Amino acid sequence: MTVEKRGVFLFRAITPVLVAAFCLASVAARADEGMWTYDHVPAKQLEARYGFVPSQAWLDHLRLSSVDMYASASFVSKDGLILTNHHVALGAAQRLSTPEHNYVRDGFVAQDLGHEIPVPGMTIKVLESIEDVTPAVNGGVKPGASPAEARAQREAQITSIENDCMKKTGLKGQVVTLYGGAKYALYRYKEYSDVRLVFIPELQAAFFGGDDDNFTYPRYDLDMAMLRAYENGKPAHVENYLKVNPEGAKDGDLVFVSGHPGRTDRLQTLAMLEYARDAAMPFGLNRMKEVRALLKAYSSKGPEEARRARTVLYFMENSIKSMEGELRGLNDPELMAKKRSQEDALRLAVEKSPELSKEYGDAWKNVESAIEWARGHENDLRYKMDVGMGGRGLLGTALQIVRYSDEVSKPDQERLEGYHEAELPDLLRWVQAPAPVYKDLEEVTLTYGFEQMLKGLGPDDPFVKAVLQGQQPGALAKSLLEGTKLDDPAFRKKLLENKGKAVAKCDDPMITLARRMDPVLRETRKAFRDHVEAVEEAALTKVAKAGFAVYGTDTYPDATGTLRLAFGKVAGYPQGTTLVPPFTTFYGIFDRAYGFGNKGDFSVPARTAAHQADIDLKTPLNFVCTADITGGNSGSPVVDREGRLVGLVFDGNAQSHPNTFVYDEYQARCVAVDVRAILEALRKIYGAGNLADEMLESSR
Amino acid sequence: MTVEKRGVFLFRAITPVLVAAFCLASVAARADEGMWTYDHVPAKQLEARYGFVPSQAWLDHLRLSSVDMYASASFVSKDGLILTNHHVALGAAQRLSTPEHNYVRDGFVAQDLGHEIPVPGMTIKVLESIEDVTPAVNGGVKPGASPAEARAQREAQITSIENDCMKKTGLKGQVVTLYGGAKYALYRYKEYSDVRLVFIPELQAAFFGGDDDNFTYPRYDLDMAMLRAYENGKPAHVENYLKVNPEGAKDGDLVFVSGHPGRTDRLQTLAMLEYARDAAMPFGLNRMKEVRALLKAYSSKGPEEARRARTVLYFMENSIKSMEGELRGLNDPELMAKKRSQEDALRLAVEKSPELSKEYGDAWKNVESAIEWARGHENDLRYKMDVGMGGRGLLGTALQIVRYSDEVSKPDQERLEGYHEAELPDLLRWVQAPAPVYKDLEEVTLTYGFEQMLKGLGPDDPFVKAVLQGQQPGALAKSLLEGTKLDDPAFRKKLLENKGKAVAKCDDPMITLARRMDPVLRETRKAFRDHVEAVEEAALTKVAKAGFAVYGTDTYPDATGTLRLAFGKVAGYPQGTTLVPPFTTFYGIFDRAYGFGNKGDFSVPARTAAHQADIDLKTPLNFVCTADITGGNSGSPVVDREGRLVGLVFDGNAQSHPNTFVYDEYQARCVAVDVRAILEALRKIYGAGNLADEMLESSR
Repeated sequence: MTVEKRGVFLFRAITPVLVAAFCLASVAARADEGMWTYDHVPAKQLEARYGFVPSQAWLDHLRLSSVDMYASASFVSKDGLILTNHHVALGAAQRLSTPEHNYVRDGFVAQDLGHEIPVPGMTIKVLESIEDVTPAVNGGVKPGASPAEARAQREAQITSIENDCMKKTGLKGQVVTLYGGAKYALYRYKEYSDVRLVFIPELQAAFFGGDDDNFTYPRYDLDMAMLRAYENGKPAHVENYLKVNPEGAKDGDLVFVSGHPGRTDRLQTLAMLEYARDAAMPFGLNRMKEVRALLKAYSSKGPEEARRARTVLYFMENSIKSMEGELRGLNDPELMAKKRSQEDALRLAVEKSPELSKEYGDAWKNVESAIEWARGHENDLRYKMDVGMGGRGLLGTALQIVRYSDEVSKPDQERLEGYHEAELPDLLRWVQAPAPVYKDLEEVTLTYGFEQMLKGLGPDDPFVKAVLQGQQPGALAKSLLEGTKLDDPAFRKKLLENKGKAVAKCDDPMITLARRMDPVLRETRKAFRDHVEAVEEAALTKVAKAGFAVYGTDTYPDATGTLRLAFGKVAGYPQGTTLVPPFTTFYGIFDRAYGFGNKGDFSVPARTAAHQADIDLKTPLNFVCTADITGGNSGSPVVDREGRLVGLVFDGNAQSHPNTFVYDEYQARCVAVDVRAILEALRKIYGAGNLADEMLESSR
Repeated sequence: MTVEKRGVFLFRAITPVLVAAFCLASVAARADEGMWTYDHVPAKQLEARYGFVPSQAWLDHLRLSSVDMYASASFVSKDGLILTNHHVALGAAQRLSTPEHNYVRDGFVAQDLGHEIPVPGMTIKVLESIEDVTPAVNGGVKPGASPAEARAQREAQITSIENDCMKKTGLKGQVVTLYGGAKYALYRYKEYSDVRLVFIPELQAAFFGGDDDNFTYPRYDLDMAMLRAYENGKPAHVENYLKVNPEGAKDGDLVFVSGHPGRTDRLQTLAMLEYARDAAMPFGLNRMKEVRALLKAYSSKGPEEARRARTVLYFMENSIKSMEGELRGLNDPELMAKKRSQEDALRLAVEKSPELSKEYGDAWKNVESAIEWARGHENDLRYKMDVGMGGRGLLGTALQIVRYSDEVSKPDQERLEGYHEAELPDLLRWVQAPAPVYKDLEEVTLTYGFEQMLKGLGPDDPFVKAVLQGQQPGALAKSLLEGTKLDDPAFRKKLLENKGKAVAKCDDPMITLARRMDPVLRETRKAFRDHVEAVEEAALTKVAKAGFAVYGTDTYPDATGTLRLAFGKVAGYPQGTTLVPPFTTFYGIFDRAYGFGNKGDFSVPARTAAHQADIDLKTPLNFVCTADITGGNSGSPVVDREGRLVGLVFDGNAQSHPNTFVYDEYQARCVAVDVRAILEALRKIYGAGNLADEMLESSR
């Protein structure tokens, strides 16, 4: 699942989130479509299709039971027990592992509260309330402002609203741009910053079938993990948590998914999709495949190397399969024809009305000119915005530290995104977290980044000269990593003290390189924002408003990484010459394992094998439903009409990737772990019946 | 599996088998390709790929252990025990069933020899020897003969060679046209006409997943049945039979398939494939879908109706999926481009050589003109050659009886195909066999046949007038079926006595209709043979000979329904985003059944459920290999290097359908029942350990 679309914190800080948009046509009559905000649920659609209208109390309860952890999760007991995916907690398990305790390979079960392990740097949050702040945000824009100026003015308003929120309510505020900028909403969050690992199964059970089975269904994965929120050193007492339906869901049942879909591009114009299809995505895909090959070569050196590279390699495989799926969608003539006919219909309606035409008519052309600019600056955008794997690794940390020291002295509203006052606690926590650093692994990816830059821009480019200073990529990466002390958390902490005063004089080689790079990176980013992002954003806001004007407001916004409610039914689907079943069972683990000779990624997980006689093998393990989800929904609870937990989203099937652009329920499915498998596994496989009991007792 | 390509006897008698052809390019270096005749096995290819060269004794043993029963089978004990598919023996089980004993629904296990049930009309045969008779066949063609004349002259030679064979050796002779007529071989068969049903599992075990899972893999079918050949009222003692390898095959193992692939069209020219793609196949597919809908409606009337229609409905579903798969291949631009480049290369080579050009250069144009003729006579061919579902049913029987009485008085060499002296025993046995007739079911299909004819040719067509004589299709079908006594085997037998003398004066309404139809049907058939078949046959012989001249003779002929040897390795394959395993297991039955809620076609077979605790569920159930097979291979034994039985072919996956035109081993696979499942099921599920013992004891 594409957790990394949201999950890697830094990526989010230095790469602008694509503008939030919405689906063009009204969906009232259309299928199980939509990722709805909690203040705008599709009551008519639900009533028409399922004869069900959720009450406000029902909605509030589900919202407050939902947990945002840069992916999705939920409270499942009154004592702050959190259910999410294995692959969401994998990074934490990896960081907590040591050569003596390999929680990724072996899993972890806390015998009791005292054995639950704090996860450094992890915070989770709950969406307490939503407020429409559209007038306040737009009120900051001065008449006659250019798109870039308007954007800056809105950002200043947003920063001020967010800061006020914290001051007034003690809640973290986030202004979310919805419907392509046609609406702004203030989301207020309660945060929990003491989160502990309670239970995680071994990787083989959670990720049975490995990369081959990723994004696949039928599937046999116990992709679950449990954490617990603490307050004041004690398990947090939460008012809202999900009760469990130990009977699970049946084929055809109505179900709901509450989670944080990261990104959809359903508002994007055809020109944008074509550029993605023909240029941006093939380039990105190729880059990821090259990095994957390097990581595999590194992994093959030995078991310790394999362990070190596993998480990043997993994310890489994941991203590749995901992007390939999206690209398949964009290369599907039917899908593009559907987009084209939607776009043509809206443009025609706009053209026919003098008023709409004047207001919004230039939107599509403006997008095209932004793409034209991007096409003319492709090399800059490719090699001067993203060095060292999107800011991951020590070079990314160095850039953050350098920028922090620069930005923190500016007025809040003039700072770069990611460095506003309200964002600093996250940033500082992340940069100082004592995560392990593997310099040999970083050397591989850093060398690749420098090589790509050299190849793309050429040796005579001033930026290349400034970075390499006459050295070869490999030699530079090696000497940087040998010389830097940034892998020491204490050193990083020291640098950040006193608003980063020491950074300017610091002669750590990674920091000095970051200082040489930063001006060019800033300049490139600013040019991209002004010429592409701001223009596209303004244009898409117009497209969105035109959509409102033509079709009304009975629709949902594009995904923004914030809490959404989706719905659908449990349903298998036709594929090839046969049918795919709605459920899989524990039997399937054994069938698939022995079908491949019970080895490698297809071996029966050791604990499952050991407890085979105890397990009721016909217990449903995974299931599929038609709910409209995407990357970031990993860990979302699936609930029934009564709001009771019946499943845990962990993936979409391969056919769901084009959902990024157009929803389709013929074969696209959301894949979930069945709650019955969760209870069965806790009791029969992991000796963690106490956790099953805690969920069930809280359900009474 | 497409048993019906060969399996419905009458269909074969009245529809000309398409000319046998061969694969154009040399395959020595190419993959696990080829359906090889036993006198021409690919020794070099096998040695290069697998380091294995079969000895003559190895080949003779496998050939003589292989059983031809219009599909495929093998001897598996010294006492004439025969292993084939459930779906090959299904028709027999259906005919033997009564309202009291439903062998299709419940299966059948003979407790001992005394309980084995004779199957009326069933004969099987073994290929005793092969002789090249090319000079003798071509020697009969007079200089200057037209294609149609040459064809008739060759047919006369063939009839004479076949008759001589029976007289001289007591063996049934069949002259097989190979390599598009570039070679003729006399196949001599020993026949067994007393065949008894020994074991057949219930349909649900053999056909788990029903039509949905047909042509699909992964698969979970115990598609097996056992028969026994008798001689003089006792089990036949056979010298050659397959020993069993109770360990089965492993992933990657070299395996061989010995069976009777029915038809491939790898020699057909691009123009023929395009005509099939654009006209013939879409028409045929549509007709089958309409018949399917009628059969389903009939089936839904009640359980007895469902039972009556099951076999024909199965064949219809089967044929539809198969033809859809082939059509997918023909609509695949890559496949057609591959064909085109092969054809272009050969045509270029022919054009470059004055000698080859003179000899073979007109072949492709001649094919095109034959297609042109067919296109101009499409309605005649569609509605005047195939009435009443390809000769099945009582109208088909009536036509056979009328023709028999006409033909049998002519000199052997002037008779219609199917009525030569050597073919009469089969014909008489079949027509007289006491198979049950369901008049209500026939009324459905016969009405459809008349309606189609009326719609296609119009009410003023003389043939339509002659058939309907002013009645409506439904009324005519009803009155014919009410009035006819042809459903009585004794009546049929009576009509055939004294070379059919009584037929001319018989006033049975179905016989009188057949008499009215026959002249037109003969005329249409003759025109089609002269203008299409003979021309295409002559042209493809030229294409084949041109191929020999350019590429040499190291290749295999197109399938002809006669015994062939294929080879390959046990291997899974990539599909979608994941891998398909080489094996499935009994676990998979339970996983798939419970995934669908354990109901309908996806319910665990009752006996399997009852004996679950006894079965070792990890026993391999089905497996896939790369051997080159097609419809007619159903029931073929799969053997290892030592010639020991490791599996039983019962299907190809969906990706194997385009193999009709071009072999490909990326995803196309032959699907087999694992011998370990056969032994396990006999012992643990069906209480038929004696049969397992018989196989294993004979193996010592």
